[in-house]
Amino acid sequence: MPDESGVIIPSLSASQYATVYNLFSLVIASMLFTAIFLLLSRGRVAPRYRNALVVSAMVCGIAAYHYFRIFENFKESYPPGDSVTAAHLLSSIEFNEAYRYVDWLLTVPLLLVETVAVMALVRSEQRSLLVKLVPASALMILLGYPGEIADTSGARLLWGGLSTIPFLYLLYVLFVELSRSLDRQPVEVRHTIKMLRISLVGLWGVYPIVYLFPVIGGDFFGGASGFVLRQGGYSIADILAKAAYGLAIYKVARVKSGLEDAAYDDDHEAAPTHEGRLPVTG
Amino acid sequence: MPDESGVIIPSLSASQYATVYNLFSLVIASMLFTAIFLLLSRGRVAPRYRNALVVSAMVCGIAAYHYFRIFENFKESYPPGDSVTAAHLLSSIEFNEAYRYVDWLLTVPLLLVETVAVMALVRSEQRSLLVKLVPASALMILLGYPGEIADTSGARLLWGGLSTIPFLYLLYVLFVELSRSLDRQPVEVRHTIKMLRISLVGLWGVYPIVYLFPVIGGDFFGGASGFVLRQGGYSIADILAKAAYGLAIYKVARVKSGLEDAAYDDDHEAAPTHEGRLPVTG
Repeated sequence: MPDESGVIIPSLSASQYATVYNLFSLVIASMLFTAIFLLLSRGRVAPRYRNALVVSAMVCGIAAYHYFRIFENFKESYPPGDSVTAAHLLSSIEFNEAYRYVDWLLTVPLLLVETVAVMALVRSEQRSLLVKLVPASALMILLGYPGEIADTSGARLLWGGLSTIPFLYLLYVLFVELSRSLDRQPVEVRHTIKMLRISLVGLWGVYPIVYLFPVIGGDFFGGASGFVLRQGGYSIADILAKAAYGLAIYKVARVKSGLEDAAYDDDHEAAPTHEGRLPVTG
Repeated sequence: MPDESGVIIPSLSASQYATVYNLFSLVIASMLFTAIFLLLSRGRVAPRYRNALVVSAMVCGIAAYHYFRIFENFKESYPPGDSVTAAHLLSSIEFNEAYRYVDWLLTVPLLLVETVAVMALVRSEQRSLLVKLVPASALMILLGYPGEIADTSGARLLWGGLSTIPFLYLLYVLFVELSRSLDRQPVEVRHTIKMLRISLVGLWGVYPIVYLFPVIGGDFFGGASGFVLRQGGYSIADILAKAAYGLAIYKVARVKSGLEDAAYDDDHEAAPTHEGRLPVTG
């Protein structure tokens, strides 16, 4: 029997179904075209930043794949009723929350890779950060999943709590360890690092809030309404943390490329006499 | 019960169905191949205009994605009857108007981005325009949606009226604020800006007219006939405002590239002795 954490939702009203359905489609379009845009824009940043753009594009591409699966799965789990205004009853096909966790298991470590890549640290420092951040972020996702599919609030809180431990370690690495090396960085790199890690933590902070909706429960945060809020919350958080964040990474790479090499500074002020040639991209 | 605004259309005649079906397919072909053409033509414009072409291509690509969804959804909503001449009755799958609004939520701000990008303003001016235009355009779309799916003319007019407020603000920014900076622009940039913003407003003006068809109502603008007119109107407006407009952006970028750099001026008059080499793109 599901309790208030309400993982199994027996039916969705027509408008609840439509809301979730349309949000999933919005995520697919956002992720897919951000990925394509980032790949097409590689030539607009200096070679040392291109890997950050490619990794950002992979993150959005992986998310587009998973949301395509989630979208198809959702249609099968909640088929239409007898009329367009009828409720959508759960079929014999489970709505599979695991797609999100498989997605995050791949994309969350990659988001840290793209962040570190655009910081343009020296190689030894980059490696030392990634060997800490990547396993911790993977562990954070793995520990969250049993809580997401648990049918009691107790289990949800327990696994959520365990998942918070690697998250706190990530914060420690980003805000304490990384800060020690900030003084050795040029001024504008220092500024970028501070800006990116604040965005990362701010955006990632949305997920635990959404995760806790079923624990709050009630008519609004529980049951079918809570399901819509949770799917909507995760969807919008994913758009911000992956697509919008990927575009921010691109912007940082553009600005830094322009500062470091005049060929990438195609500011329109300089345009009529502009001599720089951007490398050709294919 | 739907009233005269007639959002839920219980049946379409065979010819009404065929008209909408063929228009949707026309939109898919137009958007998809305009997107591909724009991407393949990047190398024919100067590097500073390539981003405008990439963004135009994303707009057409996003629209192609949504029209593909709309097309599939339309087939499911109005399945064939007993014979090729039989009416198509609404199934239990709603015809989802939200696809258009999700599409517009993404593409309308991007249309402003591509317009500002091809204007080739100085960076500070560009940013100051976009921080006003992008949120206002997103708000305009969001406020229109509740009216589109409303089943009374009153609600359609109310939300339409609210959506007009950010639209008027867009007009103010484009025609008053932008005009103040026009004097600082080179002559041909000034001309481009005037031409593009007139086209934009002219093309966007089609949408509110189509939106109001159900309010006019009657046998022609209401019911199944009104549905066909509305879908047809939006489809043709989308082709003009996205694909045709994207090609206009390309044309502007070509002309400006040729004026600024002889390498891009591969006018056929100069062809037999032409020495300029365009950078190769793949």
